[in-house]
Amino acid sequence: MAQFLHSDAPDFETAFSELLSAKREDAVDVDDAVAAIIADVRARGDAAVIELTHKFDRLDLTPGTLAFSVEEVDAEVAKVSAEDRAALDLAAERIEAYHTRQMPEDAAWEEDTGAMLGWRWRPVDAAGLYVPGGLASYPSSVLMNAIPARVAGVKRLVMCCPTPDGVVNPLVLAAARIAGIDQVFRIGGAQAVAAMAYGTETVPAVDKITGPGNAYVAAAKRRVFGRVGIDMIAGPSEVLVIADETGDADWIALDLLSQAEHDASAQSVLITTDEALGRAVMEAVDRHLGVLQRAAIAGASWRDFGAVIVVRDLDEAAVLTDRFAPEHLELCVAEPDGLAGKITHAGAIFLGSWTPEAVGDYVGGPNHVLPTARSARFSSGLSVLDFLKRTTLARMTPAALAAVGPAAERLAISESLEAHGLSVRARLDRLNR
Amino acid sequence: MAQFLHSDAPDFETAFSELLSAKREDAVDVDDAVAAIIADVRARGDAAVIELTHKFDRLDLTPGTLAFSVEEVDAEVAKVSAEDRAALDLAAERIEAYHTRQMPEDAAWEEDTGAMLGWRWRPVDAAGLYVPGGLASYPSSVLMNAIPARVAGVKRLVMCCPTPDGVVNPLVLAAARIAGIDQVFRIGGAQAVAAMAYGTETVPAVDKITGPGNAYVAAAKRRVFGRVGIDMIAGPSEVLVIADETGDADWIALDLLSQAEHDASAQSVLITTDEALGRAVMEAVDRHLGVLQRAAIAGASWRDFGAVIVVRDLDEAAVLTDRFAPEHLELCVAEPDGLAGKITHAGAIFLGSWTPEAVGDYVGGPNHVLPTARSARFSSGLSVLDFLKRTTLARMTPAALAAVGPAAERLAISESLEAHGLSVRARLDRLNR
Repeated sequence: MAQFLHSDAPDFETAFSELLSAKREDAVDVDDAVAAIIADVRARGDAAVIELTHKFDRLDLTPGTLAFSVEEVDAEVAKVSAEDRAALDLAAERIEAYHTRQMPEDAAWEEDTGAMLGWRWRPVDAAGLYVPGGLASYPSSVLMNAIPARVAGVKRLVMCCPTPDGVVNPLVLAAARIAGIDQVFRIGGAQAVAAMAYGTETVPAVDKITGPGNAYVAAAKRRVFGRVGIDMIAGPSEVLVIADETGDADWIALDLLSQAEHDASAQSVLITTDEALGRAVMEAVDRHLGVLQRAAIAGASWRDFGAVIVVRDLDEAAVLTDRFAPEHLELCVAEPDGLAGKITHAGAIFLGSWTPEAVGDYVGGPNHVLPTARSARFSSGLSVLDFLKRTTLARMTPAALAAVGPAAERLAISESLEAHGLSVRARLDRLNR
Repeated sequence: MAQFLHSDAPDFETAFSELLSAKREDAVDVDDAVAAIIADVRARGDAAVIELTHKFDRLDLTPGTLAFSVEEVDAEVAKVSAEDRAALDLAAERIEAYHTRQMPEDAAWEEDTGAMLGWRWRPVDAAGLYVPGGLASYPSSVLMNAIPARVAGVKRLVMCCPTPDGVVNPLVLAAARIAGIDQVFRIGGAQAVAAMAYGTETVPAVDKITGPGNAYVAAAKRRVFGRVGIDMIAGPSEVLVIADETGDADWIALDLLSQAEHDASAQSVLITTDEALGRAVMEAVDRHLGVLQRAAIAGASWRDFGAVIVVRDLDEAAVLTDRFAPEHLELCVAEPDGLAGKITHAGAIFLGSWTPEAVGDYVGGPNHVLPTARSARFSSGLSVLDFLKRTTLARMTPAALAAVGPAAERLAISESLEAHGLSVRARLDRLNR
């Protein structure tokens, strides 16, 4: 049973702090095992990947079968129903439209000094997408990771998705095809991350690796960071719903459970100005938990990390929300825009009761890869920027160098960097001759 | 003595690969020591920081003297000459002007469905800047890290700079004042990073930590990543110069030495279409090394990691440059814009012979914190974006939900996430009643 708190109770600050700092993840220390796997893949390439896949996924591969062939993908895609295919197509179209708007502009301008300054954006050459196998193998994640890369202009896009015991999710391959992924490898775990970071005879080395995964995948991503770019290391997911008296208890209960059903370590919290609504949501959650397929997972999450918090007013809700810095924020209130303006920290905001968070998971358009565990204080969801990098540009003229060069020379001398100063001085002397 | 290579020599590929993969950093394993320091600071706050500062910096502080007082900063700033102050002011002004242009736009639009989509950017609440003490204590780094944060709108900006044996660099404090830093703490190392990540009684916890540092600082930043945001972990610096027959051997030699004098592990490389120019640069470097103050450092860098590469044409230079993905790229050629267009990977490009890299270190305007060690393939220099985060926005209307909701429901069911589907269905059913 989730907690029911009042913000004006004397022990509220303690209870709220505990909610914020609840340790929702067991730190499994797989770092040594992962280091060994990465070293093995670097040293032996395909042979190591094949051995590790035999060991972990009980699957015998050869260099020639590491990747799905076009015919294999065709066969899996053919199993997808027309309705599922249409839903994936709609999702892909909307995700692409949203992310296309994110493309940043290059810039160049001439200053009074005559100097030209600016910057330009270029895509990374190659990106690799990790997709978990088994229960958490989500076609929507394929779209959310791959489409921003395609929109950014990444030329080569590969994907690794393990198929333990040979079990394949046809929807994942359908999503890969829709998203324009070039090659799909049926490998997973730290060995897949190592293969994409360093390359093997068969798996191409990429420049950026994104996508969710288990503790091994996360540890491997941390280790290869620097060699390649990575997206965030995602923690357990969370939703915060703010509701006033216009909120619908049943809808809110289902929104909270949408988060809770992901994972027993997910967190779902309602902050409301209406105590009666809060009570009604608690009841509705219990009612749904009685019949939900994933009641065991959702129930554990709600029991251990769930909460309903009754506050005096929406200003107080906004202050508490900023301390929470939620991954997903739903504003089930009469005036959601005004409330959104009072809140600084959230990964994604869903405005108004007609915007369930589940829409954002699939077809809203914005990315569903979002900062978890309070990291919305300082980081953003996945976007085209993750697959682009900026090069700054500067061009001095003799006149511009005459204007700013002496200050550069002075600062170089003050930092005891003589050659820096001389490189400017040599040019200035030419001007004065 | 640096290498002199010809791209058409039979062993060139081997030599070039070795240049690319030269291990320029000794991996000092300080991770266990750093973990202990962080745990100590988390557990004991100021007391731990004070003890560690006594131990490492031979300096006795109290909670009241951890930060410089306003009067202490005044006294140090008063030691700075008017000329140095004017140079810092010019640098600050130009850095601010450049970074102000980087501020991204918020966006919001209405779709055909009636849905509103968009995003908004907000600054992090608080940022912490690490500045090394001693030899590598650079006022220019203070400006380059702090000004983007200020431009982004960060409300609270603190800085940690150790003062071993009490030695203070007045220019660093002057730069801190110009950049509008709120508090400067005279602490350093892993203890300073831990204090800014977790907060102590005296040092405020921040959301983002940036700035260069030694192996302890780098290891501490890696460890607190996730609790707070960090900038990149910088490796040894490098410059690549491309020159045609219009290049000036003496200027290029000084540009190469500007990089080499930073650090014995820095790398300076010239790629040229003109063998005679290449030879002249080698000679000019040797001549300058005979008289340069930092000849020991610069000479070691040039000897161990420097190279001159003679190529057939500029197209070949561009291909090699992309494999190098240099932090700094100087184009000392007649048509630098055309050549820049052929190159994809570089942290910063300096166009034409009148744009020495040293200008970019101080007064150009673009940031001098740039991706090293080939990471320009996938990452960018420091910018205002490092101090901002994006929140995505979505607002469905009943009609918009009717248009896209069924696809979301279908995908939720295909992913066995029943509550996700029900949260959409409950709303759609209300519409159909």
